[in-house]
Amino acid sequence: MAVSLGELAVRFGCELRGNPDTLVERIGTLANADSHCVAYLSESRNRRELAATRAAVVVLEPAAADACPTASLISKNPRATFARITTLLHPRPDRPAGIHPSAIVSPTALVDPSAHIGALAVIADRAVIGARVHVGLRCVVEEDVVVEEDVNLVASVTLCHGVKIGARTIIQPGVVIGGDGFGFAPEQGKWVKVPQVGSVRIGCDVEIGANTTIDRGAIEDTVVEEGVKLDNQIQLGHGVRVGAHTVIAGCTGISGSTVIGKHCIIGGACGIAGHLTIGDEVVITGFGMVSRSLAGPGVYSSGLPITESKIWRRQVARVRNLESLFDRVKRLEGAAGTAQDENDDGPDHT
Amino acid sequence: MAVSLGELAVRFGCELRGNPDTLVERIGTLANADSHCVAYLSESRNRRELAATRAAVVVLEPAAADACPTASLISKNPRATFARITTLLHPRPDRPAGIHPSAIVSPTALVDPSAHIGALAVIADRAVIGARVHVGLRCVVEEDVVVEEDVNLVASVTLCHGVKIGARTIIQPGVVIGGDGFGFAPEQGKWVKVPQVGSVRIGCDVEIGANTTIDRGAIEDTVVEEGVKLDNQIQLGHGVRVGAHTVIAGCTGISGSTVIGKHCIIGGACGIAGHLTIGDEVVITGFGMVSRSLAGPGVYSSGLPITESKIWRRQVARVRNLESLFDRVKRLEGAAGTAQDENDDGPDHT
Amino acid sequence: MAVSLGELAVRFGCELRGNPDTLVERIGTLANADSHCVAYLSESRNRRELAATRAAVVVLEPAAADACPTASLISKNPRATFARITTLLHPRPDRPAGIHPSAIVSPTALVDPSAHIGALAVIADRAVIGARVHVGLRCVVEEDVVVEEDVNLVASVTLCHGVKIGARTIIQPGVVIGGDGFGFAPEQGKWVKVPQVGSVRIGCDVEIGANTTIDRGAIEDTVVEEGVKLDNQIQLGHGVRVGAHTVIAGCTGISGSTVIGKHCIIGGACGIAGHLTIGDEVVITGFGMVSRSLAGPGVYSSGLPITESKIWRRQVARVRNLESLFDRVKRLEGAAGTAQDENDDGPDHT
Repeated sequence: MAVSLGELAVRFGCELRGNPDTLVERIGTLANADSHCVAYLSESRNRRELAATRAAVVVLEPAAADACPTASLISKNPRATFARITTLLHPRPDRPAGIHPSAIVSPTALVDPSAHIGALAVIADRAVIGARVHVGLRCVVEEDVVVEEDVNLVASVTLCHGVKIGARTIIQPGVVIGGDGFGFAPEQGKWVKVPQVGSVRIGCDVEIGANTTIDRGAIEDTVVEEGVKLDNQIQLGHGVRVGAHTVIAGCTGISGSTVIGKHCIIGGACGIAGHLTIGDEVVITGFGMVSRSLAGPGVYSSGLPITESKIWRRQVARVRNLESLFDRVKRLEGAAGTAQDENDDGPDHT
Repeated sequence: MAVSLGELAVRFGCELRGNPDTLVERIGTLANADSHCVAYLSESRNRRELAATRAAVVVLEPAAADACPTASLISKNPRATFARITTLLHPRPDRPAGIHPSAIVSPTALVDPSAHIGALAVIADRAVIGARVHVGLRCVVEEDVVVEEDVNLVASVTLCHGVKIGARTIIQPGVVIGGDGFGFAPEQGKWVKVPQVGSVRIGCDVEIGANTTIDRGAIEDTVVEEGVKLDNQIQLGHGVRVGAHTVIAGCTGISGSTVIGKHCIIGGACGIAGHLTIGDEVVITGFGMVSRSLAGPGVYSSGLPITESKIWRRQVARVRNLESLFDRVKRLEGAAGTAQDENDDGPDHT
Repeated sequence: MAVSLGELAVRFGCELRGNPDTLVERIGTLANADSHCVAYLSESRNRRELAATRAAVVVLEPAAADACPTASLISKNPRATFARITTLLHPRPDRPAGIHPSAIVSPTALVDPSAHIGALAVIADRAVIGARVHVGLRCVVEEDVVVEEDVNLVASVTLCHGVKIGARTIIQPGVVIGGDGFGFAPEQGKWVKVPQVGSVRIGCDVEIGANTTIDRGAIEDTVVEEGVKLDNQIQLGHGVRVGAHTVIAGCTGISGSTVIGKHCIIGGACGIAGHLTIGDEVVITGFGMVSRSLAGPGVYSSGLPITESKIWRRQVARVRNLESLFDRVKRLEGAAGTAQDENDDGPDHT
């Protein structure tokens, strides 16, 4: 679909510098856009790409406007504005309301007539599917699940019995919501299964990435609050609670009963232990090893980044020998008469 | 279902302090239980919650009995007793025996009449499905798979050709058992596929969490022994063997041909290299980087836990400069006449 | 099927020491092979196993030939030769061409008559399935997907709309190709979805392991070049490009827009940040924390390997106290008159 720059400026509240009648049809990158494209300049990206762009218009911050060689849509938040323009220019294809003949829908399920149930989907007993919900190809919706309006289960999603999905939530393929939490009681060298009788409550406007798993609670529910965005292959253990508008990048695992605050930003490949409390507005950078509660707001990191292997091997050896290095320094201090208090290794920079 | 405290005491071998005729219907947490609930006190949890609980009865250790404000079921292993009470009060819904009309079952498959084959499940040629097995919605059981009695494939499970699943094993959605192991031979800059002709043998009473993957062996089988409990998103490479009653927490990956002993406890987000031997009764804490064999019994850890980012950045810089710090200490020792042997950095605290 | 050693020697260009008429039927390990088996000796494996083997023939390097107690096939690359022998002795079962009655195939899809579409697979509008493609049980092929000749979608694979899969590529169960990339624009504490309008292009002769996820690009495509081999549970973010013939081991995550060169070897459980460039012929060992671009060729590592927990706890405490140790050494140097430049902590061994 073609939209004029003038219309974009009005719809998204931007100042337009350029011809309001110019039409655009799609988005593009600064480097590869053509004259039918809208591009955008993120705050830090390469100004050279901006100078060379052939896009019809660039969405950018006020400070960059003068450097723009083509039309510009000036926004204080170019990325968010660009996101909305993208949604307008690249609308999701409409899926017709109705139930595909190959789908298996229980007679006791309640499916809104405006919902789309795709081929080979299964809707089990007493499940509730709300208005305009998209149940994609081959999804499984088990007993007593509630899916609120405008939810999009893209394809191949498994919603286990009793879970609740809030309005407008989008779930990518391969996600499993409501598998059993990892509950086992040790008894004489073996493990007794602790049945998981809680559920999962996903709030509204949540997004969940491919192959992410969210377990049901042992007793009380596992909860993901509104506006949370989860990337791929994230694992949330039983009883975890993720606060509103928190984002978590891929491959991060959070152990059971940990509570994450609101508006947190958690990097990829983090491991967060169980029974912790992470405050609001906490930022954890990628590969973070979180084994204690963290107060918010704050920025936390861990890990030793990569280096050439031969240097790394020496680093590892040196870290292993730190114990003796501390001893050697203590002996030197003794010899020099600058010895510290025996028990004082200096302030604990934890 | 309602059960009396007296019956619970008799069934599970506990001393009851309280009215044996009191009825309970479900479980609850200490904090949120009501008068129809059974709760339990784990060894370390908050005694304040115990004092304030409104549960009908609390399962707890002898030492805690006097502090209990309500009826108590005294057990030396409260968590295991509570697990069994939970199973009694919250039984798994019965799935009727029989094959859903939409399931695809090969005429050469052997399906016990007491098994339940759910909607859109596929049972391929010569597969064997044992007594009272539950094949949940949309499971795939490929050729020549053997599923022993009372196994529960919750939903959306993929069992690749030839794998064997032991009795009473429970497999959560999204699990893939018997995908090809990662076998490739380098040849002039490219990689030649090594066909994986082994299989996978899962023992009895195993549990496997959502989206976990267990590859078939290159030649010999990948083996998970009886009583093992695997959490979500675990990866077991080809030829791995996991010893009986070992538990592994989520997101841990074990590379090919590694052998894990019995009764081990492996934390989440660990990476275990290939061709290693981990002994019996080894404990590996979360985020462990295991690149050598480990003798059991023993407790092993690695990693630098999270700290405030600005402190972390200095830590990283200091670790990078350890090489020169060792040199500086050596020079000081030379100047002080306390020099160590040139080759001696102190005992290797590996 | 039985094949003679003479035929193997001719087919795979090996010198045979032994009776060319001896027949073999299958492969085996050195330790467990019988007289119908072919085994092989990898460069470093145990010569004791070779001495004791009962295999009919062993594939090995010239240097090991004299130590072989049975017939030998001498090859400069025993593993690759053994891979090819395995493919010959253990051919993949033929799946008959045609569409299973339970599969759902759109009338606008183009399915080559020689393709095999398995039970409960879904082929959506305008999808193209090439010659001899195997679409296994319960695969989902969304709209406008192109699957080139001889591709093998083993089972339970999800190919999202518009993705392209190159010839002879093999995709294990649970893989999701083309889920939305993780694109969100921050706006006043919430996150605005950035629609992902790019696609995914998988080259030819690629292999993708179970439950791996590859996201579509935000604007331009996510690309996996020819000959790449990906293990299980790998995550490729939107806009990632993986160069030809690179291999990546399990559970590694690569954030968006990162470019990986050709002929790289990336270990398991690595985390690679976004917007980086990894050069050609880079080796990254397992558990690597990659937060900067890496020049190739080169070998890179990070992480502190596992050690006994009580030693690890002291290591962690010592690393935390490095700041004060550097101060103490500086004071000693001041007292000894060997003080360094205030700003010089020694060469940066990054």
